[in-house]
Amino acid sequence: MSLSYYAQESHGPFETFDLGDFELESGDKIRGLTLAFATFGTLAPDKSNAVLFPSWYSGTSKILEQAYVGAGRALDPEKYFIILVNQIGNGLSSAPSNAPSPFNAARFPRVSIADDVRAQHRLISEKFGIKQLALVIGGSMGAQQTFEWAVRFPDAVKRAAPIAGTARVTPHNRFLVQSFIDAISADPAFGDGWYQDGAVHRGLRNHARVFAASGFTQDLFNKSAWRDHGFTTTDDFITGFVENHFLPQDPNNLILLLRKWQGGDSSRVTDGDLVAALARIKAKTFVIAIDEDAFFPLKDIALQQKLIPGSELKRVSSIWGHLALFGTDAGFNAAIDQHLNDLLAA
Amino acid sequence: MSLSYYAQESHGPFETFDLGDFELESGDKIRGLTLAFATFGTLAPDKSNAVLFPSWYSGTSKILEQAYVGAGRALDPEKYFIILVNQIGNGLSSAPSNAPSPFNAARFPRVSIADDVRAQHRLISEKFGIKQLALVIGGSMGAQQTFEWAVRFPDAVKRAAPIAGTARVTPHNRFLVQSFIDAISADPAFGDGWYQDGAVHRGLRNHARVFAASGFTQDLFNKSAWRDHGFTTTDDFITGFVENHFLPQDPNNLILLLRKWQGGDSSRVTDGDLVAALARIKAKTFVIAIDEDAFFPLKDIALQQKLIPGSELKRVSSIWGHLALFGTDAGFNAAIDQHLNDLLAA
Repeated sequence: MSLSYYAQESHGPFETFDLGDFELESGDKIRGLTLAFATFGTLAPDKSNAVLFPSWYSGTSKILEQAYVGAGRALDPEKYFIILVNQIGNGLSSAPSNAPSPFNAARFPRVSIADDVRAQHRLISEKFGIKQLALVIGGSMGAQQTFEWAVRFPDAVKRAAPIAGTARVTPHNRFLVQSFIDAISADPAFGDGWYQDGAVHRGLRNHARVFAASGFTQDLFNKSAWRDHGFTTTDDFITGFVENHFLPQDPNNLILLLRKWQGGDSSRVTDGDLVAALARIKAKTFVIAIDEDAFFPLKDIALQQKLIPGSELKRVSSIWGHLALFGTDAGFNAAIDQHLNDLLAA
Repeated sequence: MSLSYYAQESHGPFETFDLGDFELESGDKIRGLTLAFATFGTLAPDKSNAVLFPSWYSGTSKILEQAYVGAGRALDPEKYFIILVNQIGNGLSSAPSNAPSPFNAARFPRVSIADDVRAQHRLISEKFGIKQLALVIGGSMGAQQTFEWAVRFPDAVKRAAPIAGTARVTPHNRFLVQSFIDAISADPAFGDGWYQDGAVHRGLRNHARVFAASGFTQDLFNKSAWRDHGFTTTDDFITGFVENHFLPQDPNNLILLLRKWQGGDSSRVTDGDLVAALARIKAKTFVIAIDEDAFFPLKDIALQQKLIPGSELKRVSSIWGHLALFGTDAGFNAAIDQHLNDLLAA
């Protein structure tokens, strides 16, 4: 972990919202929860143009801005007030890496997707006085938060665009994500979460490789499609792109996020009844799936989409697979923008 | 590693064939190479009914026998003389775990698919006097050996049935297999290959899980299809089936096999020209692919099959994915038998 990685100079500018002591779904609590967020555009006087975009696994508000926000994009700050919020545990918001001792590092409590959404609801209500969001959008773990928003606060979400994620994780998804956790924690330097700065780099490198093996498509490797981004060999690409992405991040933060991912289940709102949970959704919902996605397969997403009243399944395709979310594929970005434009016009 | 795992009482009865010092493709050599094999049925006087079936990754002749050989099966000992041969490094044949010091463990030389096939060619020529095999069949790494046989010794292979494998591994396949190696070697107890018996069990368990995440299909997990085999939860299944399979095996043996897998490339016979290599094949070839296979995807197999003169692509389907090869799926076994019957009748 590099301390400056989570700082304003790397991922800012961002603001913070202090929620005080925050009770978690588990009954545990975070002392002095802080949500970091970045906004773009201006909130309309009637507060009708707010878009909420929570971050995904290992991402921050910065990558959301770079990949999805801009003049001429669907999320255009000229039209919308866009709130990019960092999920709990990502290191900009409260996380194992920045919590004060003794509740830091391995002692930071477990967090659920629902905890994030409850905290974000306070952010938009208390900080901005927004009662209904024009759109909640998110990819991967951001999609998990988007589903949770639409289920938990149906009147607060006018439109929803969960991309490449599910309302409830599948057994295979939980199992796959455990292999990401194991890759980090198998590093003896991890020491149950009590490690020296930078010491767990082997675990982070192994994690990056297991993550990449299914995060990208087979064709990306077989056709060397990473060449467009200036890499020279598979190893050069994985080291320069994927290891480089994870190495500056904090191992406890990543594991906290992965466990949160594994626990993603909006049906807890309705005591485990997924049909009842998704029937609660009032938002006009475009459920967007990536055809080649091996983390959240089209098939699993389609099964859950069918349970959302009036929803539509939108399919996009990318040789980058799940990790097209990063914004590496111009065609993918354009397809997402088209779907968002259609949804925002609805 | 349990010493008895590789012994007659676990995987026998098997015989051994001693090749003496054996020079490898790399220029290195194995001192006193021994191939372990098991035979079923009787070699016809004209030697026209011999079937050769090399083992796959982490398997032995025993699983081949249990899953593919028997009265009423395509490989019926009443009709064929079936030779199940253990690939070099699997622990029944010469391997890091049984080689005498000082060329044991981490010092056992690297082996290629071509080395196995050259050694097997000596087995069938010198031990049995067979000039042409009625069929070479193999799954996964066994398919790699089958392709290599048909390319390297075109006149010695009348029919070939490579199942769920390729003649040349793809970049993605090499990358995925590296994550299996890393899962073992990341265990500090591995100690660069110098470990105490049983010490690397965490690495073997992690390896089993990474292997299972893509070896089986997502549906196998999501539909709990392992219930048919008496397991109670995903973890119970993974521990009881996959960890149980790998835990008694030797870490150096597994890594040797994985590196051999990564290097699988029949085009070395023709200086890297895959088109020329596959054009050498004279065998009537059924290339069999598993639709759901994430190790050797249908798409990759189909591309290579097209390069084999007169070959046919046969597709089978199983919720067990690549690991249907283990014989867990009766429907898969029946489909394979049907294709083999058709091929043997050709």
